[in-house]
Amino acid sequence: MSGSSRIRTDLALEATESFAQSNTELRGVEVKEQYDEERDIRTTVVKITTENGAKAMGRPQGNYITIEAPNLSASDEDYHREISEEIARHLRKLVNLKRETSVLVVGLGNQAITADALGPHVVDNLRMTRHIIREYGLKSTEKEILHRVSGLAPGVMAQTGMETSEIVMGVVAETKPDLVIAVDALAARSIRRLNRTVQITDTGIHPGSGVGNHRIGLTEEYLQVKVIGIGVPTVVDAATIVHDSMEHLLDALEEQEQKEFLEEMIAPNLYSMFVTPKDVDETVKYLSFTISEGLNMAFSGV
Amino acid sequence: MSGSSRIRTDLALEATESFAQSNTELRGVEVKEQYDEERDIRTTVVKITTENGAKAMGRPQGNYITIEAPNLSASDEDYHREISEEIARHLRKLVNLKRETSVLVVGLGNQAITADALGPHVVDNLRMTRHIIREYGLKSTEKEILHRVSGLAPGVMAQTGMETSEIVMGVVAETKPDLVIAVDALAARSIRRLNRTVQITDTGIHPGSGVGNHRIGLTEEYLQVKVIGIGVPTVVDAATIVHDSMEHLLDALEEQEQKEFLEEMIAPNLYSMFVTPKDVDETVKYLSFTISEGLNMAFSGV
Amino acid sequence: MSGSSRIRTDLALEATESFAQSNTELRGVEVKEQYDEERDIRTTVVKITTENGAKAMGRPQGNYITIEAPNLSASDEDYHREISEEIARHLRKLVNLKRETSVLVVGLGNQAITADALGPHVVDNLRMTRHIIREYGLKSTEKEILHRVSGLAPGVMAQTGMETSEIVMGVVAETKPDLVIAVDALAARSIRRLNRTVQITDTGIHPGSGVGNHRIGLTEEYLQVKVIGIGVPTVVDAATIVHDSMEHLLDALEEQEQKEFLEEMIAPNLYSMFVTPKDVDETVKYLSFTISEGLNMAFSGV
Amino acid sequence: MSGSSRIRTDLALEATESFAQSNTELRGVEVKEQYDEERDIRTTVVKITTENGAKAMGRPQGNYITIEAPNLSASDEDYHREISEEIARHLRKLVNLKRETSVLVVGLGNQAITADALGPHVVDNLRMTRHIIREYGLKSTEKEILHRVSGLAPGVMAQTGMETSEIVMGVVAETKPDLVIAVDALAARSIRRLNRTVQITDTGIHPGSGVGNHRIGLTEEYLQVKVIGIGVPTVVDAATIVHDSMEHLLDALEEQEQKEFLEEMIAPNLYSMFVTPKDVDETVKYLSFTISEGLNMAFSGV
Repeated sequence: MSGSSRIRTDLALEATESFAQSNTELRGVEVKEQYDEERDIRTTVVKITTENGAKAMGRPQGNYITIEAPNLSASDEDYHREISEEIARHLRKLVNLKRETSVLVVGLGNQAITADALGPHVVDNLRMTRHIIREYGLKSTEKEILHRVSGLAPGVMAQTGMETSEIVMGVVAETKPDLVIAVDALAARSIRRLNRTVQITDTGIHPGSGVGNHRIGLTEEYLQVKVIGIGVPTVVDAATIVHDSMEHLLDALEEQEQKEFLEEMIAPNLYSMFVTPKDVDETVKYLSFTISEGLNMAFSGV
Repeated sequence: MSGSSRIRTDLALEATESFAQSNTELRGVEVKEQYDEERDIRTTVVKITTENGAKAMGRPQGNYITIEAPNLSASDEDYHREISEEIARHLRKLVNLKRETSVLVVGLGNQAITADALGPHVVDNLRMTRHIIREYGLKSTEKEILHRVSGLAPGVMAQTGMETSEIVMGVVAETKPDLVIAVDALAARSIRRLNRTVQITDTGIHPGSGVGNHRIGLTEEYLQVKVIGIGVPTVVDAATIVHDSMEHLLDALEEQEQKEFLEEMIAPNLYSMFVTPKDVDETVKYLSFTISEGLNMAFSGV
Repeated sequence: MSGSSRIRTDLALEATESFAQSNTELRGVEVKEQYDEERDIRTTVVKITTENGAKAMGRPQGNYITIEAPNLSASDEDYHREISEEIARHLRKLVNLKRETSVLVVGLGNQAITADALGPHVVDNLRMTRHIIREYGLKSTEKEILHRVSGLAPGVMAQTGMETSEIVMGVVAETKPDLVIAVDALAARSIRRLNRTVQITDTGIHPGSGVGNHRIGLTEEYLQVKVIGIGVPTVVDAATIVHDSMEHLLDALEEQEQKEFLEEMIAPNLYSMFVTPKDVDETVKYLSFTISEGLNMAFSGV
Repeated sequence: MSGSSRIRTDLALEATESFAQSNTELRGVEVKEQYDEERDIRTTVVKITTENGAKAMGRPQGNYITIEAPNLSASDEDYHREISEEIARHLRKLVNLKRETSVLVVGLGNQAITADALGPHVVDNLRMTRHIIREYGLKSTEKEILHRVSGLAPGVMAQTGMETSEIVMGVVAETKPDLVIAVDALAARSIRRLNRTVQITDTGIHPGSGVGNHRIGLTEEYLQVKVIGIGVPTVVDAATIVHDSMEHLLDALEEQEQKEFLEEMIAPNLYSMFVTPKDVDETVKYLSFTISEGLNMAFSGV
């Protein structure tokens, strides 16, 4: 579909949906969905298993787990402990946390722009242990600590003058973690998914994903260490909203006509706008707790 | 036009444009435009002079001055001193600052939500003088102070449990200013105007205007003191974007069909979303300086 | 004692201690202490019952409850629920919350200076209900709401140009609550008490108390409505630290000599300094949760 | 002097003063003072030229420039441009900015604790150019850019689980700047110097300096690249205040007695306290502009 290549989503799940819509079968892509009625959590695992599948989907081979929970965007005294547990559970499946005991969590994004601040907030809330173990050894605390956790919010290029990937590469080379977990705010296609969806992937972070623009990815190939990407969509491109609203109507019109019409309609200045829920500022703070608790759980072996 | 009643703009200027579009002549409404080519500032004065005009425009009789400056959204070392001067100049025309020497500036909006934080930021940047004059008299400083300036950011109803208008009413009754200036973030219809437009009006603030929802206005009728409203559009309703994008296409279709289509297309959840430029967080901070400097100039007689 | 009049504490408990030290009996002042060993909470109730007692203590007749909990300054997942419960319990003793159902909570202090930001933070964390009950009635939520809670952080005089008491007076006159609860950051004499002590009093807030300078108090006499003051000491005057450290040594010297010496030693510039724990920024945030939870409990009848 | 080893100052200037006080001559240390009466700026250059001098002073050989400007702590529309110019001028003397064209500015300290947030604020205000030059070349902007400026606020160990020096080392190894400038909040001995003094040194940052605790320094020896340290004292240890106040009195007493007395008097808990001016939160923000403007000037060749 011509539109889908222009309109951006960071959710693999949404990429599969555009194929489903057009009734295209997709070789090299497996989709499994599970629904937990009691807790109202839908989990979809998308596996891209071949190079063809990767090409069609516009993202590399690997696992993409999407946890959708409509309640997630509502405030909750426990910061949605049930979602934190889901995150911890999937993380333990994707990586062997018994063997990979030294973890660097990278909070991508711009702390000064709320819709992009999820990553830095997660790092803020994380319990760091690497320096404690280095100082006092593994039995330094009441509970035995299992993981050496470190974290960094490297900022964005306009703030630092450096590619985020350069900073992370330098820190990885110097501190040699077994695993990097990169947390980022994402763009979705559907506003229903904003602040209600967590995507976990073992393919890392790729150029162009995230609310800000990463020009070089954080991948195992680049960093020479396994990279997990965790993200939550906090924005939809304004152009996407308009595009999707009109597509329905335009199905009846000719293909060529549609393209020209869309280009005329979706004014270029729409591309620097984004659509967010009015309460995005508060919600991003809550969500960051949910994710960091998930990481804290996974690392402490609870 | 059926759409215009559903789609929201806080700019009187945009309300006149929807009439211009439909070639309707509008009695009781005068529009005068001036363009300063050198500084690229367009100033439009809309005067609503009759009850009919007020009804057609959906806002009360009075003066609405709109200053449009494309550069305004860009960062500037001087915080756009030329716009501050424009604001001061128009303020002095709308009110007799020689006679009305005691001014309460009310910063409306929610400090925790950036797109709604313009008002509180302006109050933050303002030079308060009322308490100094009460303590030391008019000649307490090197320069003679001309105005007794006080300011308040009352917060929003969800934060205080009170109507903003109740708080302002109480403070006005207790401190008896000659003039209230209420500053607020607005919603526009055109994304071109976001963060680039300042509206000044002698009609105060009305229910439903502003990014947040004011249920009771701040008007001379209610507060028993003259009220100037100053606002900058920082958001466009997502529904407006979609509506405007489709209207063009739908001009050819039947009226009835259009309405049904729009209701179907513009999903109800769009109404809790808004569209903002990606750099709204930084821009609102800059803009608040420009406005507060304008007020500081007007009050110090520079 | 000459020193005590110059050296400031906002804790009635500390005022009694300076008398205890000098073995003076204090008529018109009753002190009762209770210690809960299990939870390590010491509660002291100071009752000033006569005009002479008030004069000697330098504060008005009434009840002053001090809750000291060494653990309070440490971070806690539950935000010290046991202290919140203590606060709620004492509040219910001081006022008849069954009869006084409309409450205005005033968060005094300057949000921009952490050591002074306790009050604004408490108001931020409070569940406001007044506007909900006005809109939907008492049975609008699942649980019956018992109190009409509203709240305001009026800022400080340098920020508003108005006495804080003027703003509160205006809002009280307009919204007519049955009870005002004013929350403020205090100055203590002993650094041991910083961030570990909550004082609750039915005498309101008096000029000169609090970290900032209130020039007019918030009292029942002034506002014509009952006023409860709740405070936590977050700073010690630097001059106090030096004074107390030296007093011990100087006991052996002559009174006159001591006074001159102190005036020489305690440089005037010390008076604009304060002493805070290095972690005051984080601690004030935690403490505000503990207090607002106490208020939330008291108002919801839990 | 026994006391000076226990009581901490990060200003080389104050280290020389304790020798001056005891009339000790100091070999290997040269002190030159200049006073600009018109602008009320006192500049002192301390040169430590021998290993003995370094030992006596408790800091390495090199140049320590101290700019004292009483006006610095006051708010100023121009953010004290005259001090920014002084900083730029001295920087150009210490390093050959014509040859060393690639600069990494490291903002040390904890953004969440105001008195420690100077470094991160400076990085926030800096104009980064390295990424622009990499993308578009040296002539990408109207003015020719002379320096490739990058910046990082690495956070503190409790926030990251890593030594700050590990992070900086990694980023230096990856991005290979010619020069590192590390900005940090300092502790002074004299409260008169708080927020009014800028120290510039070509010896970098050493363990134990700064408001937070750096355990490994940022030095040329460690990073293999030239390191300039820039700092402003924002706190005095509470123990220092008490110590200094008492020392005068105790001069008449026996040495042994003094030591015991001091240990008794200066309670251990004083060591976790610090003394700050009441307006430290605002002042740190202003100061960071002054310093970053100084850096911006030095890098743009103005």
